[in-house]
Amino acid sequence: VGEFDLLRRIRERLPPAGPPTLLGSGDDAAISVPDGATVTSVDALIDGVHFRREWSGPAQIGAKALAVALSDLAAMGAQPGEAYVVLGVPENLDEHGCLELLDGMMRIAEETGTTLAGGDVTRAPALTLAVTVVGHAERPEHLVRRSGTGPGDVLVVTGELGGAAAGLRLLERSDASDIDHSGVGSMSDALLRRQLEPRPRLEEGQALARAGATAMIDLSDGLGGDAGHIAEASGVGLKIAAAALPIAPGVAEVAEAAGRDPLTLAASGGEDYELLAALPPERVAGAAAEIEKRSGIALTRIGEVVAGEGLEIRLPDGALLKATGFDQLG
Amino acid sequence: VGEFDLLRRIRERLPPAGPPTLLGSGDDAAISVPDGATVTSVDALIDGVHFRREWSGPAQIGAKALAVALSDLAAMGAQPGEAYVVLGVPENLDEHGCLELLDGMMRIAEETGTTLAGGDVTRAPALTLAVTVVGHAERPEHLVRRSGTGPGDVLVVTGELGGAAAGLRLLERSDASDIDHSGVGSMSDALLRRQLEPRPRLEEGQALARAGATAMIDLSDGLGGDAGHIAEASGVGLKIAAAALPIAPGVAEVAEAAGRDPLTLAASGGEDYELLAALPPERVAGAAAEIEKRSGIALTRIGEVVAGEGLEIRLPDGALLKATGFDQLG
Repeated sequence: VGEFDLLRRIRERLPPAGPPTLLGSGDDAAISVPDGATVTSVDALIDGVHFRREWSGPAQIGAKALAVALSDLAAMGAQPGEAYVVLGVPENLDEHGCLELLDGMMRIAEETGTTLAGGDVTRAPALTLAVTVVGHAERPEHLVRRSGTGPGDVLVVTGELGGAAAGLRLLERSDASDIDHSGVGSMSDALLRRQLEPRPRLEEGQALARAGATAMIDLSDGLGGDAGHIAEASGVGLKIAAAALPIAPGVAEVAEAAGRDPLTLAASGGEDYELLAALPPERVAGAAAEIEKRSGIALTRIGEVVAGEGLEIRLPDGALLKATGFDQLG
Repeated sequence: VGEFDLLRRIRERLPPAGPPTLLGSGDDAAISVPDGATVTSVDALIDGVHFRREWSGPAQIGAKALAVALSDLAAMGAQPGEAYVVLGVPENLDEHGCLELLDGMMRIAEETGTTLAGGDVTRAPALTLAVTVVGHAERPEHLVRRSGTGPGDVLVVTGELGGAAAGLRLLERSDASDIDHSGVGSMSDALLRRQLEPRPRLEEGQALARAGATAMIDLSDGLGGDAGHIAEASGVGLKIAAAALPIAPGVAEVAEAAGRDPLTLAASGGEDYELLAALPPERVAGAAAEIEKRSGIALTRIGEVVAGEGLEIRLPDGALLKATGFDQLG
């Protein structure tokens, strides 16, 4: 692939940049005139580390790279703005594959109102995507950090958990032909999409910010890991009831086939890209109603913020599924 | 290397973020409140494509990655602001090497007044750096694109050309022990530094913008390639006199040893990261005086902007060193 030829073909496909972007791809840098606060995050996806090309086509990979980057903006309650993309192209991805990848990325950009405003294309030993996303908010105080919650707030989560981890397990099983594939049923497509085609909860993040969320994070590493980041940043304890977790349909069957507890899969599995937020209790009903109305996504109360420092996720029988911190585990 | 451990050690080393950055590394995204226009560019450096680890230590690689990204901001006449870094770590780079790399990057950040405001660390098959830089200007009209020049303007270049290409040639020769190393003299260190430790011309770019530069680009691919981008974007012809090019000391010796013409090396060799700008003729003396006073760097007039579309670089004997476009080559 000639780098300049490919860059030109990519630029031909990009829609013209709109405000706040004055100048998109094609100069030394893009120019924007942002109004208010900007939020910036970068995410890298590398073949063999974050995805496998035998599981995903180029369009899915491009879409996922932008989606997971935008998920960090969702977790701030920001409105998506611009994306800048580094594409590292290995020898076994031809120009057609590169343009398919771009098409997948452009579909997410269009769905979310994101402008692809610039990038860099280079050779690489493995397919490499590094995506920088910029979001906006009228005022910096409107953005939700990980650090603002305190005792008395409750914990809520958007959508459903465990689907991406169950989808990953299905993909891993599909490699091993000696494992029984029966018993997964019609849920498997949805679980695979959940793993391969995540969608950032941008509308939901903005609704939670408007509702007064005091801390928020997106669930990329899994609830058990990501909730710990809120606990640490806010200097609080989080107590989560595993029985309250909204488990995605099909997760129970996949977990059972693997001899695992579905609650464990939902609490520890990553890549659901749902949002975990802390809210004052009186704000939960309003936030849930607004999110349900806008996008049909449920908001589920799963725990509470307490004094102390640490994280507990407790199973219905009272046993601890996960515990970190806290001097005394009660 | 544990990703979270390394991230924590990296964050411990970063100086606190200053304005316009309200919140640096450690949350889902960084928060800024920019004033005026922002300029954004991304650049990727990958081992085996853009550098070789046997030629450069980690600190040099980190410094170069940030420097070449900032060079794009210099080419817009922007003031450097924030940088966001993706670091892809291969198995043969340990934590100590990663922190050395960060130290090299932090040295450039400190020299240029850039805030390292966020990033992502991941495993990768080869050392991979993707750097997003954000610059600022009071108003978008103050930024210099590639597209604004017209006939009557003259072309100027900062500093000296050919040094990075000559340094690369020295490095390549140092691999082949059967080639004579004598005759290079004391210039070789400077040429190697020119290749391995480039510095962005940020002050010079801002001075050229204030002086009324109508188009500007940084010389990453080489004068012959990059001047063509200005010609194309502005829809003009550029005529450059090779004899006028400011050749870096030592380039002549390296070119001679290689049996090449030093002017050809200076016109076609990349990675000098000097700035090529178009200026109204009456502004050249003032711009040159200001840049000389501020940083001791020379500004050299090397050609002119004419009607037509294309690029000519002519040797002292009248022969064409490079010609693209133009219906009739006169």
